[in-house]
Amino acid sequence: MRNTARWATTLALTATAVGGPLTGTALAAQSTPATLYAPSALVLTVGHGDSAALATPERAVTLTCAPNASGTHPAAAQACAELRAVDGDFDALAVRSDIRCTKQYDPVVVTVDGVWRGQRVSYERTFGNECVRSSYGSGVFTF
Amino acid sequence: MRNTARWATTLALTATAVGGPLTGTALAAQSTPATLYAPSALVLTVGHGDSAALATPERAVTLTCAPNASGTHPAAAQACAELRAVDGDFDALAVRSDIRCTKQYDPVVVTVDGVWRGQRVSYERTFGNECVRSSYGSGVFTF
Repeated sequence: MRNTARWATTLALTATAVGGPLTGTALAAQSTPATLYAPSALVLTVGHGDSAALATPERAVTLTCAPNASGTHPAAAQACAELRAVDGDFDALAVRSDIRCTKQYDPVVVTVDGVWRGQRVSYERTFGNECVRSSYGSGVFTF
Repeated sequence: MRNTARWATTLALTATAVGGPLTGTALAAQSTPATLYAPSALVLTVGHGDSAALATPERAVTLTCAPNASGTHPAAAQACAELRAVDGDFDALAVRSDIRCTKQYDPVVVTVDGVWRGQRVSYERTFGNECVRSSYGSGVFTF
């Protein structure tokens, strides 16, 4: 009796292990067109103010990085290359050494929303002024 | 003495009123290219699950509606026309009468983030299944 119960359990677990994933795959294939890459599609905005809640977005551009770089971002290919280099970590974008900015406080806030390699992105960053914004990375924040 | 102080205050206020805005305008003109239209740029995602927090975005498309309809959305022009018709109110998109769906519960969640006519958008909506999603509007949610 104990052995029978154990076998039944083993069989049930095997059926789940084999049947479960197969069913899942079949359903996914039925309802979703195959995606060969994790999607990367972003909207970047910029506005004057201390935070996104206070700043009206003055400009907004789209940036798609898969399968190809595209979008209304003026330097889409460069921006995508740069984001790939930092693995989508916007805080890791390096400061350019060839740009020197004043410390004048006229804050601009940049937001990034959407998806990077299948992960949701909701990013906000305030720079002291336009010059400082342009000094980060070679193109991501320059639009 | 009192009069002198009053005059000084008046002069200072006038200087601020005249000088302040001019300086602001000059800076804005210098640092921001003129935008002739309020930006409309969106990222739409879809994933399987009850809410965006639980669903991995399986697909993500961009949609820009100004100055022209563009983006990786498969029916960008149609989607923009439809959004203009409802003034960007995603909840107002009408249900198509020519599509009949089963009540099978296999929820899909759609998110929309970005900017519509200069206003930030952060929208999330869960549909009972893929068919129900496709039945809303003539193309916005079909991607």
